[in-house]
Amino acid sequence: MTTPDRIQRLIDDARRGSSQTRPFYRDDDVFAWDMQRIISRKWLLVDHVSRIPEPGQFFLYEVGQESIIIVRENEATINAFFNVCRHRGSLVCLEKEGRRKHLICPYHAWSYGLDGTLKAARHMPEGFDLSENSLHRCHLRVHHGFLFINLSPDEAPAFDEDFSVFEPQLDFHGFATAKIAHKQSYPTEANWKLVVENFFECYHCAPAHPEFSSRHSRDALIAVGAGPSSGALDAMERFSAELEEWEAAASKLGRPLGSVDDDEHSPHLKFCQQRPHKKDIKSETEDGEPVACLMGRRRAFDRGRMHLSFSPFNQIVACNDFAVLIVFSPRSARHTDVDITWLVDGKAKDVDVERMIWIWDVTTKQDKIITENNQRGIDSIRYQPGRLSKLENRVDTFNRWYLNQLSG
Amino acid sequence: MTTPDRIQRLIDDARRGSSQTRPFYRDDDVFAWDMQRIISRKWLLVDHVSRIPEPGQFFLYEVGQESIIIVRENEATINAFFNVCRHRGSLVCLEKEGRRKHLICPYHAWSYGLDGTLKAARHMPEGFDLSENSLHRCHLRVHHGFLFINLSPDEAPAFDEDFSVFEPQLDFHGFATAKIAHKQSYPTEANWKLVVENFFECYHCAPAHPEFSSRHSRDALIAVGAGPSSGALDAMERFSAELEEWEAAASKLGRPLGSVDDDEHSPHLKFCQQRPHKKDIKSETEDGEPVACLMGRRRAFDRGRMHLSFSPFNQIVACNDFAVLIVFSPRSARHTDVDITWLVDGKAKDVDVERMIWIWDVTTKQDKIITENNQRGIDSIRYQPGRLSKLENRVDTFNRWYLNQLSG
Amino acid sequence: MTTPDRIQRLIDDARRGSSQTRPFYRDDDVFAWDMQRIISRKWLLVDHVSRIPEPGQFFLYEVGQESIIIVRENEATINAFFNVCRHRGSLVCLEKEGRRKHLICPYHAWSYGLDGTLKAARHMPEGFDLSENSLHRCHLRVHHGFLFINLSPDEAPAFDEDFSVFEPQLDFHGFATAKIAHKQSYPTEANWKLVVENFFECYHCAPAHPEFSSRHSRDALIAVGAGPSSGALDAMERFSAELEEWEAAASKLGRPLGSVDDDEHSPHLKFCQQRPHKKDIKSETEDGEPVACLMGRRRAFDRGRMHLSFSPFNQIVACNDFAVLIVFSPRSARHTDVDITWLVDGKAKDVDVERMIWIWDVTTKQDKIITENNQRGIDSIRYQPGRLSKLENRVDTFNRWYLNQLSG
Repeated sequence: MTTPDRIQRLIDDARRGSSQTRPFYRDDDVFAWDMQRIISRKWLLVDHVSRIPEPGQFFLYEVGQESIIIVRENEATINAFFNVCRHRGSLVCLEKEGRRKHLICPYHAWSYGLDGTLKAARHMPEGFDLSENSLHRCHLRVHHGFLFINLSPDEAPAFDEDFSVFEPQLDFHGFATAKIAHKQSYPTEANWKLVVENFFECYHCAPAHPEFSSRHSRDALIAVGAGPSSGALDAMERFSAELEEWEAAASKLGRPLGSVDDDEHSPHLKFCQQRPHKKDIKSETEDGEPVACLMGRRRAFDRGRMHLSFSPFNQIVACNDFAVLIVFSPRSARHTDVDITWLVDGKAKDVDVERMIWIWDVTTKQDKIITENNQRGIDSIRYQPGRLSKLENRVDTFNRWYLNQLSG
Repeated sequence: MTTPDRIQRLIDDARRGSSQTRPFYRDDDVFAWDMQRIISRKWLLVDHVSRIPEPGQFFLYEVGQESIIIVRENEATINAFFNVCRHRGSLVCLEKEGRRKHLICPYHAWSYGLDGTLKAARHMPEGFDLSENSLHRCHLRVHHGFLFINLSPDEAPAFDEDFSVFEPQLDFHGFATAKIAHKQSYPTEANWKLVVENFFECYHCAPAHPEFSSRHSRDALIAVGAGPSSGALDAMERFSAELEEWEAAASKLGRPLGSVDDDEHSPHLKFCQQRPHKKDIKSETEDGEPVACLMGRRRAFDRGRMHLSFSPFNQIVACNDFAVLIVFSPRSARHTDVDITWLVDGKAKDVDVERMIWIWDVTTKQDKIITENNQRGIDSIRYQPGRLSKLENRVDTFNRWYLNQLSG
Repeated sequence: MTTPDRIQRLIDDARRGSSQTRPFYRDDDVFAWDMQRIISRKWLLVDHVSRIPEPGQFFLYEVGQESIIIVRENEATINAFFNVCRHRGSLVCLEKEGRRKHLICPYHAWSYGLDGTLKAARHMPEGFDLSENSLHRCHLRVHHGFLFINLSPDEAPAFDEDFSVFEPQLDFHGFATAKIAHKQSYPTEANWKLVVENFFECYHCAPAHPEFSSRHSRDALIAVGAGPSSGALDAMERFSAELEEWEAAASKLGRPLGSVDDDEHSPHLKFCQQRPHKKDIKSETEDGEPVACLMGRRRAFDRGRMHLSFSPFNQIVACNDFAVLIVFSPRSARHTDVDITWLVDGKAKDVDVERMIWIWDVTTKQDKIITENNQRGIDSIRYQPGRLSKLENRVDTFNRWYLNQLSG
């Protein structure tokens, strides 16, 4: 059976309401298809623009076997290039980040401008055209301070059309002028779909995340712990009173309400949800007290929490004084990079990093262990897809979206 | 050529009296067949019951990519389960051993009884039936204190019919009431068949195991160094006088005589052999003196040694005051776990562990080096099956049994 | 598509004047073909005879998955054998080098003479013929002190016919009576063809090797930095005056002039080139001063430098008082061993090793980094063959030779 036939049969065999079959989480050829059919075709949120404020500053973003240079050309322009010299293919940038006037390949000194054009290549034969040897460009968009790339060699998918719906929320939170307060990495030995599934349900919150769970009402976790439509309908009824009371108060403080909840046929499966923390929680710190000034256009603390996801490959979770950007970067069938960037308001000073990172550091370390043991269990030949709970609706939606994308 | 065709051709090309061809020791697809056709279909002796005396005590046994939970349900019952949650496939038990009232999956807290039935699963949708979601059971038998499992999803092979022949010996040695005195692991970077072949011949004893060889008469090693029918016929004639003299004396002390010697068409290729150590060797210690009280129903030291093997995946070697259980667990085409458990009589006290483990620790470390260098030599494209010696009859029998099982 | 068809298509798609396509640098099946079609069919220079001056001395040479024993039988004879026991395939020699009276397999003590014949094998069945169980011989030639092997199971390629052209140079340098002063290893995580390409062009010398570049005139590096026909024709014109002046002087001091420059259809793509260092450079040391007495038949220092290559798998670079033998040993699709042996005259005394190894140690460490980053860049799906410069003619020649060999 050829690979396409085999994968189509796997797709045909998938069932609603269950976890996926074993090959989807383990096989190298499925991962190659994931890269080609899905990961390379989506807008991937990779970092925040405040990482490279000065012209010439760059960083590398890695996904699959690709290394992408994200570099600021000037005040107005940021570019993304495949980190592959057009000469004999060396990496052009070796450091993870830095500042350069030109991008000079360390091998033969081919020198590229910050716009990717080849400026100089010594001793080339007659007829060699510098202009035909620019670095391969990677699609890039800056949107409210977030850097998005798309690996496609062809046209990138629509951006504004799909993402403009987040406008009021992104503006209110002031992400365009936010700044990075901290970064940390949690490399995870598991397939990227297990990492996403884990983030798309809060069924595991009670047993696995005591710290996280202590910040939220029980009904909130059960109803919408992992975003809109993630949880149980009956809990949603109970939770709605708590939610409506908070919405009324938050709205008075200027917060734009509303949620987003893409279905399995959407291009990016994006969503956005806003809800309150428990009464005494101003910020997601251990004592509930803030670590920084209010973010964005806020006038007062409103206990609110926004979970916004442009696609399954990134998650933004914002309380009033800081936000985390969590990026999942699939690297191989059994490895996913998980990188967290903490953001604060552009005017914030003296941020207490240790208190700020507490909740997501402890939670992500727990998630790493959970997900890696999930992968190891699925290695058993006796593993079979299991029935999903009422708190895993978003896992089911993700799986169906994934299968649609893979076959599409 | 398809994998089954390729493997059938390899089987057809095999010749008697030689080591096997290169792919049998190296290829991933052959190992997958080994797992499916042989390892999963045999009764595997995994440990001694004294490891989990109390209800709720468990340990994990790993073979291939499988993790098996062996857990005592109550005084009378021990169960084995695949360590895979029926929900989304996480490992249920993470520690190598421990004690639990329930087996609770750390991911979403699905809670299983010690009998494997699912007792509680929060927030499941209507129609979800706990009783259909028990842990996948693994066949288990307790036999004279030894724990046997069988991975087959269908009926397990006959047990009593095949193994009852060992009754007198197992009873005399008191294995049912023995206890574990020590455990040690010798992970080996070699194919499991090289590990077995190494244990099934004593041709290498003289050059590679000086300590081991010093415990036995030269004729014993040459004739039956690796069990009945393992060695040279002419040495057997010389050795028989020594053997008969010892048998007469041992019999008077109550030892049940007799040997077992399965052929290549048997299901488990089991065997049992009893013979004396050298005259001054009471126990397999460096000074020949015991480290513990007599095991089982013995009335006096008789210098005897029993080598009993339920299948090529385990070896029991017993002197008068202690026994070793050596378990070979194939993990991949190039890796085999070798684990040794030292057993003493249930009433033994103040066992000198260091003196007890001497012979098998030094011998198994030597075997690990030997076997790993055998694997590396076979990596050469110039390797070809070599002629077996008169002391490697059991290797030949094993190879023919293996090929029968693989094609069967 | 079958592997041969796929590889033939890759060969057909290759274009002159460019680096190669991605699979040639990455794929396991291409590497298997490289081993079978090229590496196993060439004479590989592996070391210098002074490594094993005494009868019984041996060392192991490893290439691909093969381990080869090179052993001195007596004053007149050196042999090479596959390091695989003819019994059950164990490695016979475990240490990297040593001295033995016999080659005794550590597993079952099969004992081979230094001529590879099986001298003793205990307990073998009737009809077993020692003479049919010699170690598998590997072709070996000693030539001016250099040890060459060929892995082919059939006849080896012609030796004298191809290599006699180097006679005057090898003789003048006194390699037959040279001795080893030092050895060092630089294992490199890159395909062997990237390692060779890197050595076959000096386009990277200016940006990547400041120490190396400081020893040579700019025109020399541009014209012939990586051997004859390696560089730019216009620089060759400028360089010829410098070259001719030096040749006249060197010739008067007895140096045999002349160069060798095989084309893409030759069996070994060998070459030889001689040229001067800068005026003040007597030896390739940091201060330009010698570390040892003159090598070979020299009468005086002449600033000369010879680069001689028997095949792409080895490079000899000699200044007046020492020479390096650089051996590239392909091990897998992504790993190449790079081993350097420093040679001095047989009569040299008190050699300052640190000063002697300076230039090649610093240069090879730089090359390791360069080549590994080249490999990583080629991992990108966006890599495509790039246009070669006027200083990479030898890379192009090598690539065409490689493709000829692969399809031949």
